[in-house]
Amino acid sequence: MKDNYCVIMGGGIGSRFWPFSRESYPKQFLDFFGSGRSLLQMTFDRFAKIIPTENIYVVTNEAYASLIKEQLPELSEKQILLEPARRNTAPCVAYAAYHIRACNPDANIVVAPSDHLILKEELFLRDVRKALDFVRENRALVTLGITPSRPETGYGYIQSSDTVVDDFAKVKTFTEKPDLELAKVFMESGEFFWNSGIFVWNVNTILEAFSKYLPDISSRFDLGKDKFNTPEERAFIRENFPYCLNISIDYGIMEKANNVYMLCVDFGWADLGTWGSLFELAPKDANDNAVLKNNEAMLYESSGNVVALSDPKRLVVIQGLNDCIVAEAGNVLLICKKEDEARIKQFVADARIKYGNEFN
Amino acid sequence: MKDNYCVIMGGGIGSRFWPFSRESYPKQFLDFFGSGRSLLQMTFDRFAKIIPTENIYVVTNEAYASLIKEQLPELSEKQILLEPARRNTAPCVAYAAYHIRACNPDANIVVAPSDHLILKEELFLRDVRKALDFVRENRALVTLGITPSRPETGYGYIQSSDTVVDDFAKVKTFTEKPDLELAKVFMESGEFFWNSGIFVWNVNTILEAFSKYLPDISSRFDLGKDKFNTPEERAFIRENFPYCLNISIDYGIMEKANNVYMLCVDFGWADLGTWGSLFELAPKDANDNAVLKNNEAMLYESSGNVVALSDPKRLVVIQGLNDCIVAEAGNVLLICKKEDEARIKQFVADARIKYGNEFN
Repeated sequence: MKDNYCVIMGGGIGSRFWPFSRESYPKQFLDFFGSGRSLLQMTFDRFAKIIPTENIYVVTNEAYASLIKEQLPELSEKQILLEPARRNTAPCVAYAAYHIRACNPDANIVVAPSDHLILKEELFLRDVRKALDFVRENRALVTLGITPSRPETGYGYIQSSDTVVDDFAKVKTFTEKPDLELAKVFMESGEFFWNSGIFVWNVNTILEAFSKYLPDISSRFDLGKDKFNTPEERAFIRENFPYCLNISIDYGIMEKANNVYMLCVDFGWADLGTWGSLFELAPKDANDNAVLKNNEAMLYESSGNVVALSDPKRLVVIQGLNDCIVAEAGNVLLICKKEDEARIKQFVADARIKYGNEFN
Repeated sequence: MKDNYCVIMGGGIGSRFWPFSRESYPKQFLDFFGSGRSLLQMTFDRFAKIIPTENIYVVTNEAYASLIKEQLPELSEKQILLEPARRNTAPCVAYAAYHIRACNPDANIVVAPSDHLILKEELFLRDVRKALDFVRENRALVTLGITPSRPETGYGYIQSSDTVVDDFAKVKTFTEKPDLELAKVFMESGEFFWNSGIFVWNVNTILEAFSKYLPDISSRFDLGKDKFNTPEERAFIRENFPYCLNISIDYGIMEKANNVYMLCVDFGWADLGTWGSLFELAPKDANDNAVLKNNEAMLYESSGNVVALSDPKRLVVIQGLNDCIVAEAGNVLLICKKEDEARIKQFVADARIKYGNEFN
């Protein structure tokens, strides 16, 4: 128990959720469901049930330090690891591993994004515990594979093999987001699972993997081996982190290592990566409209819409609108077809070109 | 010139323009085009060019007295005639006529709504002058008939006869809003003109008409003959106005009188009664979208929309939306098909039932 650690990755920008998610206030800090807790806070709350609070870390960009402190006052200064630059997940995972090893060389670590929704918490906690126990005994890099409920094209997939240790199946391949045809094949095969991006490993196992598959990164961090968990850590990270390769943990290690195992799970997981995924999960009215944030809403001859106004005291009246996103936050109102939400990134870019950062 | 008076009717609620137009702040007080002047102010500015400012009156509901003073500081207290109750246009016209006769028994009066748009001001002023001259010489009730530019079903029509005095044609009939088929026939006939609701008459001519066609109303006002334009007027009106018949000047007098004449005009008139009429008039982008209020807007694959956000500093991004009204004001956001805007009145009523007056 005392050897169990958690690393929450909270440095993303989440521009696909604009205008709600802003570069200055990304989605993990938002309370999408009007529940009173942000995605980050819900993630913390979950892990705090099985991991000692003092063993929970958040890795984020320096820009979000104050937001983290504000939303998670439970965390001490030293539990917030600040990245001086955006370098994707591999350097983030390495930084956390080096720091945690300096605190506890026997640490078992669960690494999780901060913007996921988990509906069946009990199952989730059981599976995470199980994985933490597994990596204590086995030099395995564990990923949680979600049993697919639909041929989703928005997720990466993991293919399991027949080699199974306890309930952990050796992973055959990681695949990028498939097209719909392939996604259907994946689903029917029964061999493919959604890549949750939730990983579990012993600190020594992951650091060995880094020196083997991402030596550029590990050698860079090795320069400051003795500085981690000391007053010198910040200065060392500030100076060296920016030199790290910009690469994901999936691509840099999980797809290459031969000791990757997957635990098949089914705890009502969703990556809140898009309005569409949010819509899938949100409670809906009789006409399949999802009104978030407890907004007062009156809908007529409308269906399939997802509606979110940052001001819950505002009334929204919608008539004759179908399958749209109606999102209003701060100084921006967005109305967009759900099926075209991939273009939101472009809208943000266009707005930046036209207006500077006023609306970003 | 000194005998020419103007009465601006400014007591309407304009609920079809909700959420912009609120019962507490109706459309005539709004600056729809971001021009810096409200519809009421634009109406006043127009008449002030040909009518002495001290001869311009506004008749409105007591509830709007302070709004009028705020928007038209040029008016003295006694130029604002306050209705203690909503009684349609006939009692409003009678009240103004009784008051003005007490000021000037030779007054010639132009009566106009406060929520109209007039694009060709020079022509408008020429025609009003012409009508004022005509009613000085003739005991005629004059209405301005607009040469129709399309088979509009939202307006009432006036049928002219062949009896013409100067350029003023004796009116044969007034008709209610026709259906599209009939409206087409009207337009092709060349005999039918839009009823602008702008009337011109000598004060004695209209008061004779009242005693002849609406004796209930005139006898009620006759009770206070000597009180008009005296300190006793307010108390008299407060006590007696509510007893007046609730009836329009068109139905109560114009459709019945046999001395009604029409001047055919074509000064780019529009009754800003609906979002649709506003859309018709507003400048549009290449895809036929009308963005009012100088809002910052980015539209993609969208056409035929009318967009109005009360906060001009707000950015609106719209994609894949066609022929809709997107209107946001105060605590309400409305998205509605243009063709279904007639239902806005229902939305307002529903909101009142559901939330009380919070959003009205």
